[in-house]
Amino acid sequence: MNGAEAILRTAREAGVEACFANPGTTEMALVRALDGAPGIRAVLGLFEGVCTGAADGWARMRGAPALALLHLGPGLANGLANLHNARRARSPVVCLVGDHATWHRSADAPLASDIEALARTVSTWVRTTASPEHLARDAAEAVAAARSAPGGVATLVVPSDLAAGPAPGPAEPVAPAPPVRVAVDRVERAARTLREGPSALLLGGPGLGERGQRAAARTGCRLLAEGFPARMERGAGLPWVERMPYFPDRAVALLAGLRGLVLAGAREPVAFFGFPGMPSRYTPAGCALEPLAAPGEDVEAALEDLADALGAPAGETPPPRAAPAMPEGPLTPETIGAALALLQPEGAIVVDEAATSGVRYFHPAASSPRHTLLTLTGGSIGMGPPCATGAALACPDRVVFDFQGDGGALYTPQALWTQAREQLHVVTLVCSNRRYRILQLDWERPGSQAPGPKARSLTELSPPPVDWVQLARGLGVPGTRVESVAELRRAMGRALAAPGPHLLELEVAS
Amino acid sequence: MNGAEAILRTAREAGVEACFANPGTTEMALVRALDGAPGIRAVLGLFEGVCTGAADGWARMRGAPALALLHLGPGLANGLANLHNARRARSPVVCLVGDHATWHRSADAPLASDIEALARTVSTWVRTTASPEHLARDAAEAVAAARSAPGGVATLVVPSDLAAGPAPGPAEPVAPAPPVRVAVDRVERAARTLREGPSALLLGGPGLGERGQRAAARTGCRLLAEGFPARMERGAGLPWVERMPYFPDRAVALLAGLRGLVLAGAREPVAFFGFPGMPSRYTPAGCALEPLAAPGEDVEAALEDLADALGAPAGETPPPRAAPAMPEGPLTPETIGAALALLQPEGAIVVDEAATSGVRYFHPAASSPRHTLLTLTGGSIGMGPPCATGAALACPDRVVFDFQGDGGALYTPQALWTQAREQLHVVTLVCSNRRYRILQLDWERPGSQAPGPKARSLTELSPPPVDWVQLARGLGVPGTRVESVAELRRAMGRALAAPGPHLLELEVAS
Repeated sequence: MNGAEAILRTAREAGVEACFANPGTTEMALVRALDGAPGIRAVLGLFEGVCTGAADGWARMRGAPALALLHLGPGLANGLANLHNARRARSPVVCLVGDHATWHRSADAPLASDIEALARTVSTWVRTTASPEHLARDAAEAVAAARSAPGGVATLVVPSDLAAGPAPGPAEPVAPAPPVRVAVDRVERAARTLREGPSALLLGGPGLGERGQRAAARTGCRLLAEGFPARMERGAGLPWVERMPYFPDRAVALLAGLRGLVLAGAREPVAFFGFPGMPSRYTPAGCALEPLAAPGEDVEAALEDLADALGAPAGETPPPRAAPAMPEGPLTPETIGAALALLQPEGAIVVDEAATSGVRYFHPAASSPRHTLLTLTGGSIGMGPPCATGAALACPDRVVFDFQGDGGALYTPQALWTQAREQLHVVTLVCSNRRYRILQLDWERPGSQAPGPKARSLTELSPPPVDWVQLARGLGVPGTRVESVAELRRAMGRALAAPGPHLLELEVAS
Repeated sequence: MNGAEAILRTAREAGVEACFANPGTTEMALVRALDGAPGIRAVLGLFEGVCTGAADGWARMRGAPALALLHLGPGLANGLANLHNARRARSPVVCLVGDHATWHRSADAPLASDIEALARTVSTWVRTTASPEHLARDAAEAVAAARSAPGGVATLVVPSDLAAGPAPGPAEPVAPAPPVRVAVDRVERAARTLREGPSALLLGGPGLGERGQRAAARTGCRLLAEGFPARMERGAGLPWVERMPYFPDRAVALLAGLRGLVLAGAREPVAFFGFPGMPSRYTPAGCALEPLAAPGEDVEAALEDLADALGAPAGETPPPRAAPAMPEGPLTPETIGAALALLQPEGAIVVDEAATSGVRYFHPAASSPRHTLLTLTGGSIGMGPPCATGAALACPDRVVFDFQGDGGALYTPQALWTQAREQLHVVTLVCSNRRYRILQLDWERPGSQAPGPKARSLTELSPPPVDWVQLARGLGVPGTRVESVAELRRAMGRALAAPGPHLLELEVAS
């Protein structure tokens, strides 16, 4: 057995079932060893950000890590932006980064760079394997580190000679650190806070799963969700949970008057950016922050204990929320949001990177059939197409929507090709407004000066207009342009009925 | 004057004339300030790797830095792979990375990460501006650091509140460190080595410019070029300079029997990868390595001193080399290489990221009209389309060929859009062999086992086949598919006659 085989068999035993790869010469032993690891699916990405974003999407849906197989420092660098999102999502991801042969290191060959320094910016665990004897154990520890609560990125750097050379057999799985049970006094303090005055329960991480939400609903408290959840179960049968807004004025308004804010799997709510004149942290003055369960603690059990402490009855299924009427006419954030909420089938997975075009989707989707929402946890755009790819591979029986701004989709369009190769049922809805709309809001604030022509040109995605239908077809995905809700309904019907990926370019009217 | 204006005016005074930007909210003050900096062209990239690769291409052609304006850590991360190539090219590049407002740092907002750690992996100079008083001076020092011999990446991190807030006016340019003049004894030692026995002069960096090559030719010595030159002047009127091969067996054969190897702007030749059974360093046993001029030293003057020390006569223009016959038939590495060498007009800039499809171009192009060759210095693929974009902006009177493998082009296809927006005369020749051919060579080595189906699938770019014509059109660039040399000649004629970018998809037959 060579080192590569020892690594992959160890990873398989530890629960790894997929490898998203963009390999190079230094990874060829690992590439070859995949054929000897029948339980691990090998998926090619044409750009490393596809691999890491897909591993994030897989991890969010499976709760277990996939491998991202990357080529030295530059390959890892190309994958970092989506690893940043995975870090913020606390997704278990194992990066395998091939490196030069140990005996070639001192040559400082062209592709050499400081791989560990790059890895440390996104990883909770980084190691370069030192010898053949360590390979399998390092792989087992990497998987355990990724899986340890609350989950994170583990990066194992594998020199090519160690991967290709002889090594002892695979290692036993290492037990990941489980979530820590929250002590009773924390539950009691949280219960007191919620009883005492205007208060809310801010849910994040596992608190936004079905179990967490049902327990939270039993408390009868006002429920909030962190602004960018890694994964949130939504739709029929689940309680209404308001999401922390992106814009600071709305976030401040939402929390105004609170005297207590209990955190369950969420961090203190902070501004996405430091906008002039707006606060950095949103907790109002005089409002107590009460940490019920931090990430890495057993959020779901803590929420159940909290409901019990409040003397809450066993949960009831909340009444269904009124669905919006099917809109008509041109495609705007309002009509797109309502139409998607009405058209998405039971069990859909919705990856939301729609930015300004998507701001009117969250509310109506509360009335949709049960579905799963994945959002842009780290703010690094280009997450949607890869994340949807990984989610579709993780859940082949569910349809995946990549609800996508055009600006963001242009960072990682290569994911479409992987969707085509793997024939994944992903429907990409590109909201084509041909601008970085969120940046243009900067000069629409009161008192702002109009931008000059250069500034405007740096926020406009046209000219030339991107033709998403041709771009998608170039990458093997059938595409359709739609200009009205009626056309969207027809195109969506066709996309849902046919297998494989589809891209709908939505011409956003405003 | 705000901080952003102070930075840009300082940069302009120090010789910066272009800004390749993919901005976000934290960079909006800098974006707006571009309209008050008339000497700086603002160019949008849809992905950060386009911006950094374009800044590299600009720098290689101008010898002066452009700005790459990037959005926090994830934006820098997306630009790192091409900054790695710029680092290896010793290209002067100034990265301006926007960061959160200083007062928002402690909130650890979603996009926060360790920007400096990322920057240090590619930069010779990294600084986060500490206060408004430092902004302009920091910008002046960043430009000077990038321009200091031998050239490098300088990264200045600019918190958004400092860029938007009031600041003192611009700063005077700071003088960059010039190349160091080489001492006479080094020249004499090199001359002795070259006189004594079988020897060669290995040129790199400025040694591959016109002045360096002419001086080197005067020595009458055997001339070699480093394997991946940042910039090499080539064609009619210049001497024959053999390039260090990528494959180790050929490199070893090329240097076999040498007793002395004089380095002029080049490092000791090393293997690109550590292949089993092949050496890490190529200098044969018993061959003296004689460093005439290291990167950062005055390579051109040292070569002239060397020629004088050898008593060489003033240079003569070498006789023209015989051109190949125009090939016919299907497109193979041989026919593509010869055809491009014959079709490229005087003054062309050729960016070579054609990998295995391009290996037969270098030799025939020695007989081409004068041109400039830019290669993949750091081995991080996806450099070609961005680098060609920057080179075309730097040299609007010259046609640029992006001679490109399909695998590499799929990392940064977004550069085509920038070429369309700026109406650059870039002809992209995508050699479409639908595979990572260089990886497949791994199992074609003697004694290698055949790969399994997973390993093979990870090296094949089909299914589905990428349709480059549609992909290019989707990004605003007219595309043509060509399947023979005759079709290539016709399509090339049209592409050279018309302004703006063109993409030719070359169906590689073998």
